[in-house]
Amino acid sequence: MGERDDAAGDVVAIYSGGMDSTVLLWSLVAQGRGVRALTFDYGQRHVREIESASALAARAGVPHTVVDLSSLRPLISRGSQTGDEPVPEGHYEAESMKTTVVPNRNMVMLSVAAAHALAVGAPAVAFAAHGGDHAIYPDCRPDFVEALNLALSRCDWGGVRVEAPFLSVSKAEIAALGADLGVPLSETWSCYKGGLLHCGRCGTCVERREAFASAGLADLTGYES
Amino acid sequence: MGERDDAAGDVVAIYSGGMDSTVLLWSLVAQGRGVRALTFDYGQRHVREIESASALAARAGVPHTVVDLSSLRPLISRGSQTGDEPVPEGHYEAESMKTTVVPNRNMVMLSVAAAHALAVGAPAVAFAAHGGDHAIYPDCRPDFVEALNLALSRCDWGGVRVEAPFLSVSKAEIAALGADLGVPLSETWSCYKGGLLHCGRCGTCVERREAFASAGLADLTGYES
Repeated sequence: MGERDDAAGDVVAIYSGGMDSTVLLWSLVAQGRGVRALTFDYGQRHVREIESASALAARAGVPHTVVDLSSLRPLISRGSQTGDEPVPEGHYEAESMKTTVVPNRNMVMLSVAAAHALAVGAPAVAFAAHGGDHAIYPDCRPDFVEALNLALSRCDWGGVRVEAPFLSVSKAEIAALGADLGVPLSETWSCYKGGLLHCGRCGTCVERREAFASAGLADLTGYES
Repeated sequence: MGERDDAAGDVVAIYSGGMDSTVLLWSLVAQGRGVRALTFDYGQRHVREIESASALAARAGVPHTVVDLSSLRPLISRGSQTGDEPVPEGHYEAESMKTTVVPNRNMVMLSVAAAHALAVGAPAVAFAAHGGDHAIYPDCRPDFVEALNLALSRCDWGGVRVEAPFLSVSKAEIAALGADLGVPLSETWSCYKGGLLHCGRCGTCVERREAFASAGLADLTGYES
């Protein structure tokens, strides 16, 4: 943590219901800040995920809004075509959306979160990009956050700052912090599949299990395998 | 014009169907570029406006997509509240949406346009912010575009550049350029009201009339008054 622990004031948090953003939510609440949570749905989320996010946000006492961006699906699939004809429903598979990197995802989510922050007079938006994301996603890196902050400082009269307190933190450290804060970690949802239990085998499940293990925490998540 | 006339390659253009973005569309086509047009609808646009934009894009031979962002309306109204309860339809008036400045509008639109550009492999997005917008909107100023370009250069592996060729151009100069390019200027739509004709009295109608007059062009727009 460190750098943003001294931050104050209301904050709009990008919230997936996964482990990282749930620990972020608890951490912001613990700082005594007014928090609003936004879950972005490009049409790829399973009902299970949304329900999990809503239940956890309620438990944190945080107002929660699901932002429906499914209208963007035909635009953001790699190789997509556009035109006045609507793309048929179901043309894009939920699973392929999940496993595909959504282009410019963090800038889209942070821009919308900043618009909401400006509307409600909150001086900050927060997201849970962490050290382990850097190698994979350019828009989870400190220099992206720095540039976006420069743009945000010029987008409006008010100005909104992006806080990304986990940028230099590993997922295991996030799990440990979550345990310290009393986050119900086993109720967070990481799995890309739509089952009732975590599959235990997909990339995010493996990363999740490793985080618990590295942090020396008991993993009470129910896994299929 | 000037700075970006030498630009090449495909481009995703933010397209309202108004005079400025229509001249931009024609200008990009005249450069021989592959152009895709996106019209963003926060739920505030009149059918008349959308139809006008679609017809003009078709006339320019440009694929056109209306991006439905009406799900963002409850989030971006100043003083808006959020929560799990959906906001009733019709709670926000179209007129008040039009006359209110949508917070962070250009960053949201440019972020989504950049996501689409990345998906289709286009190296640029374009928007028609012009010199006359600077005093009113911070996100129409050169330093905002510069900062956003820095962020975009770091958001993904590919990189997309924002082009804003009218940043130092007046609306009268845009009208003159449009006349040179053979743009059907009278068919562009500026009015904030939902009538069959331009009202001729609202802020954008007044600005439109002044642009024609300053450029020494006949204004063939049908006005109510």
